Amino acid sequence: MAKEITARADDYSQWYNDIVKKAGLAEHSAVRGCMVIKPYGFAIWEKMQAQLDAMFKDTGHVNAYFPLFIPKSFLSREADHVEGFAKECAVVTHYRLKKGADGEGIVVDPDAKLEEELIVRPTSETIIWNTYRDWISSYRDLPLLVNQWANVVRWEMRTRFFLRTAEFLWQEGHTAHATKEEAIAEAKQMQEVYASFAQDYMAMPVVQGSKTETERFAGAVDTMTIEALMQDGKALQAGTSHFLGQNFAKAFDVKFLNQDNKESYVWATSWGVSTRLIGGLIMTHSDDDGLVLPPKLAPTQVVIVPIPKPNETIAEVAEDIKRQLGQLGVSVKIDDDPKKRPGFKFAEYEMMGIPVRIGIGMRDLEKSVVEVARRDTKEKTQIPLDQIHQYIPALLSEIQDNLYARSLQFRKDHWRQVDDWDTFQETLEEEGGFISAHWDGTSETEKRIKELTKATIRCIPNDQPLENGSCILTGAPSSRRVLFAKAY
Amino acid sequence: MAKEITARADDYSQWYNDIVKKAGLAEHSAVRGCMVIKPYGFAIWEKMQAQLDAMFKDTGHVNAYFPLFIPKSFLSREADHVEGFAKECAVVTHYRLKKGADGEGIVVDPDAKLEEELIVRPTSETIIWNTYRDWISSYRDLPLLVNQWANVVRWEMRTRFFLRTAEFLWQEGHTAHATKEEAIAEAKQMQEVYASFAQDYMAMPVVQGSKTETERFAGAVDTMTIEALMQDGKALQAGTSHFLGQNFAKAFDVKFLNQDNKESYVWATSWGVSTRLIGGLIMTHSDDDGLVLPPKLAPTQVVIVPIPKPNETIAEVAEDIKRQLGQLGVSVKIDDDPKKRPGFKFAEYEMMGIPVRIGIGMRDLEKSVVEVARRDTKEKTQIPLDQIHQYIPALLSEIQDNLYARSLQFRKDHWRQVDDWDTFQETLEEEGGFISAHWDGTSETEKRIKELTKATIRCIPNDQPLENGSCILTGAPSSRRVLFAKAY
Repeated sequence: MAKEITARADDYSQWYNDIVKKAGLAEHSAVRGCMVIKPYGFAIWEKMQAQLDAMFKDTGHVNAYFPLFIPKSFLSREADHVEGFAKECAVVTHYRLKKGADGEGIVVDPDAKLEEELIVRPTSETIIWNTYRDWISSYRDLPLLVNQWANVVRWEMRTRFFLRTAEFLWQEGHTAHATKEEAIAEAKQMQEVYASFAQDYMAMPVVQGSKTETERFAGAVDTMTIEALMQDGKALQAGTSHFLGQNFAKAFDVKFLNQDNKESYVWATSWGVSTRLIGGLIMTHSDDDGLVLPPKLAPTQVVIVPIPKPNETIAEVAEDIKRQLGQLGVSVKIDDDPKKRPGFKFAEYEMMGIPVRIGIGMRDLEKSVVEVARRDTKEKTQIPLDQIHQYIPALLSEIQDNLYARSLQFRKDHWRQVDDWDTFQETLEEEGGFISAHWDGTSETEKRIKELTKATIRCIPNDQPLENGSCILTGAPSSRRVLFAKAY
Repeated sequence: MAKEITARADDYSQWYNDIVKKAGLAEHSAVRGCMVIKPYGFAIWEKMQAQLDAMFKDTGHVNAYFPLFIPKSFLSREADHVEGFAKECAVVTHYRLKKGADGEGIVVDPDAKLEEELIVRPTSETIIWNTYRDWISSYRDLPLLVNQWANVVRWEMRTRFFLRTAEFLWQEGHTAHATKEEAIAEAKQMQEVYASFAQDYMAMPVVQGSKTETERFAGAVDTMTIEALMQDGKALQAGTSHFLGQNFAKAFDVKFLNQDNKESYVWATSWGVSTRLIGGLIMTHSDDDGLVLPPKLAPTQVVIVPIPKPNETIAEVAEDIKRQLGQLGVSVKIDDDPKKRPGFKFAEYEMMGIPVRIGIGMRDLEKSVVEVARRDTKEKTQIPLDQIHQYIPALLSEIQDNLYARSLQFRKDHWRQVDDWDTFQETLEEEGGFISAHWDGTSETEKRIKELTKATIRCIPNDQPLENGSCILTGAPSSRRVLFAKAY
């Protein structure tokens, strides 16, 4: 009765869509490019949100909420920003509907045209910096460390569940600082927070680095990124943190008096991660039987299934295990539905990626053991009942570590240092993965490489040592390697 | 140095706006009718959200997320719904901007017109029931108990902070059931959840009842409400829970096979509370010195202020109190800013409604006492240092109870049973408050009363006994009293 999904080897893209649909994470909606995040998918987002929000607060940030709509003229204020964002946007032009002339249906009321169109926010730098002008007048008002959890809309033509949708959920931090150094330190700090979250919670290794000028956020001086590697050898930009210089302060005239009573423009950062992380989570760990979730982000960590069917003795044991584990902070679900067979349930919970399954059968109970199966390796073990409260938390921790180690190994196996153009092209075509190579530092070469291979420079890694070399394409001198990959 | 605010007696409406602004809760944005919820206001909303979300989950609900946009035609599907909601809406007509012909600024690209306009959701019944059609086929899929935290937009002409804004934040529950009885029970349960939240957390007494046909949600069979009374004698609808019958199931063709294999339309409820609750919270408890917050929803419950200025001994005592109270789950802030005088700080924290202030001075410390001031009554007491960890939690609990008792007393004092038209009019004009009166049950009379007095029927209270009487306006026979008030 297992719901079958396409194998990765057959069609990676279809495999991904199958998991999203069959694990009940999301589905298409009636609105082009917008998805419905279903309860199970949203529960994963809630776990992510809770952890990230705690990490933001631990680093001194507070939450606030700014309007969904941005006056059209705001987007034009920062020259680079308008290039990057004022294109594919949802535009509100009217504020009223009325009955159609034929009495059927409703039409837009032409008399209710807005004087200035409103844009559904694609990102909020403009409306927020317009607000900060009134919040900041002195160095005493700084730093201002604000985050917002919100929905944003970018009218994408080609969408994919979680990875690229017209509307998505995210958080956007917007901070204001008295000095350049402090703003840069903030942007770096948030890149570090994102990397910790990806590695410690998502069990997803990431490379920290900076974007090239071409790939930079529209309006940023420096875009710091965390880049992960998916199982098909493509990279995923998982989070970005921008040092915005004084660009938005100048565009919205946000100045402050420093301790010497001199006026100066404010320094800015912004940083964000989105529901795209769910896509990264799926593609990092899952297999041909369905979703695989790291225990720290699994809405249900343990499922208990009676075998072959529920009875009172089994129910008591199940409740006892649930209670014991619950006290230790482990989330447990008992599935005692008598209408479904255990085999059906096993396949269903494998599809949903529940990290640990406990099967309780009468024969096992006579020996005071239960069967514990882990989702990541599919191993099954008989565990004495009186050891369950020790075994399960340790196993969850081991699964978390194993998923990270496995992903890290995968990345090592798909990380090549390449020094000639033929190998570069071959590697991209045959294996994908990260390629560390020299580049001459020009946007022209970067563009040409993208045209020829579809690979982009994912980042200049933070820990990349200086090293003399020749550009992989032009042979021009280069002082350090950058990281190439095809990307989502 | 206290920031002065208008007294309630002078101008209630200005008093409210002053508190919102000077306590740092919200401010107007550059977008007409949309406000910025500032960090302190948002922190109150986060406390509300956390508690409500826990209560929704305890009653079996899960969260999900549906699109921000609703295809225009969806709004026409349910006849009453379109009347109520398809009017003042934000309408998205285009999906692209481009550079202006003069090279300056950006304009809407006329080539990027949507085939069907999209409405920014004013509420989500239509898009959600369109989705439920695919989620429900059998009684096994029911009940479906889903909630969404989201932003919604209603193009209000006259807006007020929190109470009525073009965009607001809310939660909307949308449930599907196999039977009418079960759906009604769900709607009643959520009314009860809202009432418990209002009373136990907001310390705001509410009347539970049903709306008359005129005041019902557009598309509902029965709208259950919780109604609170503000200090100016006006009522506030604080939350509603709707029994929707099969109206949306019919409009979106959502059927299921019951246990006898017969096809039937699904029964529905929806229920919501919004950032409007923050407005209710402010107007229920605050006074002429600023905001007053019930401890259970105060982001900071205790503030410690050194007198006259910080030193090492005081810092140690303050940290020790913070640590002790922190262990008990009390949130404490120490304000050791040497640049502000204690009097300034006192006024500031009174404005912010922090429930308890602890002043630590050297002379008091010699006697091993500190000064504890409560925000609700302004009483100050000397408390021995070694009793603080017992005294403060008990005091917070007492403040919570006192705020509720005080509001309940206010409501008792402004609740009249009236049987003649002259007294009815006089009471409304002179005192406001709730008026329990007989009504002949017709929409015509209800409408006439509203025209004559601006009072509406807030609800038919759930616990209102049957009683023969004559309508306050027409003298026609009535079988029970209903509750009138002027309302926000």
